[in-house]
Amino acid sequence: MAAVALVQGASRGLGLEFCRHLLQHRAPAAVIATCRDPDTAPALAALSGEYPDRLAVMRVDITREEQVRSAAERLSSTFPKLDLLINCAAVLHPSGRGETSLRDVSAQGITATLATNTVGPLLMAKYFSPLLKKGTGAFGQQPEDKAKQHCGVLVNMSARVGSIGDNALGGWYSYRMSKAALNMATRNLSIELGHSHPKIVCVSLHPGTVNTDLSRPYHKNVPQHKLFSTQYSVQCLMDIIDSLSMDKSGKAYAWDGSEIPW
Amino acid sequence: MAAVALVQGASRGLGLEFCRHLLQHRAPAAVIATCRDPDTAPALAALSGEYPDRLAVMRVDITREEQVRSAAERLSSTFPKLDLLINCAAVLHPSGRGETSLRDVSAQGITATLATNTVGPLLMAKYFSPLLKKGTGAFGQQPEDKAKQHCGVLVNMSARVGSIGDNALGGWYSYRMSKAALNMATRNLSIELGHSHPKIVCVSLHPGTVNTDLSRPYHKNVPQHKLFSTQYSVQCLMDIIDSLSMDKSGKAYAWDGSEIPW
Repeated sequence: MAAVALVQGASRGLGLEFCRHLLQHRAPAAVIATCRDPDTAPALAALSGEYPDRLAVMRVDITREEQVRSAAERLSSTFPKLDLLINCAAVLHPSGRGETSLRDVSAQGITATLATNTVGPLLMAKYFSPLLKKGTGAFGQQPEDKAKQHCGVLVNMSARVGSIGDNALGGWYSYRMSKAALNMATRNLSIELGHSHPKIVCVSLHPGTVNTDLSRPYHKNVPQHKLFSTQYSVQCLMDIIDSLSMDKSGKAYAWDGSEIPW
Repeated sequence: MAAVALVQGASRGLGLEFCRHLLQHRAPAAVIATCRDPDTAPALAALSGEYPDRLAVMRVDITREEQVRSAAERLSSTFPKLDLLINCAAVLHPSGRGETSLRDVSAQGITATLATNTVGPLLMAKYFSPLLKKGTGAFGQQPEDKAKQHCGVLVNMSARVGSIGDNALGGWYSYRMSKAALNMATRNLSIELGHSHPKIVCVSLHPGTVNTDLSRPYHKNVPQHKLFSTQYSVQCLMDIIDSLSMDKSGKAYAWDGSEIPW
């Protein structure tokens, strides 16, 4: 049967573009798009109108475990498998601005950031990995050796600023810490889901600095050629996804395929 | 004036032992011990009875920002400075057992673990760093070049299992992710508080596997010679603290002084 991909956090930005890309370039792949509130996601609704037979939109607030659980249950009753899960939803900080210093840090701000950027993706992995285990390996590279093949691919959208070793500037406490913790989740997931049979490839990806709402307050500081369109970033990231196999699992890659240190 | 050290999470385990060590071996240093509920910390109360003039016990629940803020305010009115802050409080998981697989992961479990292990230490840094900036550099090594000297030392008790690169076993999702995020906090703090004048040394330390309540469920799996007493671990960690200077800031060290990858 055709490939099935789920994009979590698909109302706008990279998530929306992943849906569009998969629908335009990967026919007849089916796409499940989840977002917190489909009623306030007009672009996703328009896409759904364009591809009524291949795009399903589901309401999931990933900060509420019960919603994630029940969404996975509903999906299992409609789709027999999942080949690709992309966790996209993220906030820089509830204020829209990363902390420039400790003065800006608050328990509320970091807790909310962790809920969306870190805990949510882990809950998605918990409840949707059973369906990924039924995947038919429609994404990534399959080696000839059947023992090394994978059934599914799990992508956590991370960020270079989530690299501890690469951190030379500081600031953005909540965002950086949430992505470092997410990278640990990726690593843990790659171990648990890489030892299971069948196997799931798990990676963190860095999309570059992309022209989205998340980074909008900082665009004026980014040289024009380094500010990617969502289309360009997603094209690069899909090239990486197409190249994935079990031996690349458990790592973090940038949009250009280079590995990012932890 | 005499050195002043604050130990956060001092009711038992490593925190309690840091207090005891500082009182026994670093006279006339003053020690401030914070814990969530001094009424249920008999060993700390006994220590306070032994050293009434040098040990002050403060009630601070680090998961409540207002308590951290007001504790810092009270301390500032009594002590003119702080030379050392050690963030010790940690939970493995609210259940007492680290997750062995995704099946055990819950939003409630990881959120509570992040609150104590990650957000709490960052709040301590936010509210107590102004007092650390008034420190007189009583801990660590001071180079001759005044521009490279530090006024205070901030220690986040981390753990080797918080290293993403070192993670070969998986499991313990909440604990690992909380410590990876804490390591990012250490790194960020080292940048912000290393660029300020005066400067604060910030490090993550791994105490080894120590005979405490946190690790008790796993002691039977640990070879006897690898299960440290709190006394031994704290002695090793104090040796590291004594060796710290600005050029060692922003890194993670194990009990034996070796650097731990992120």
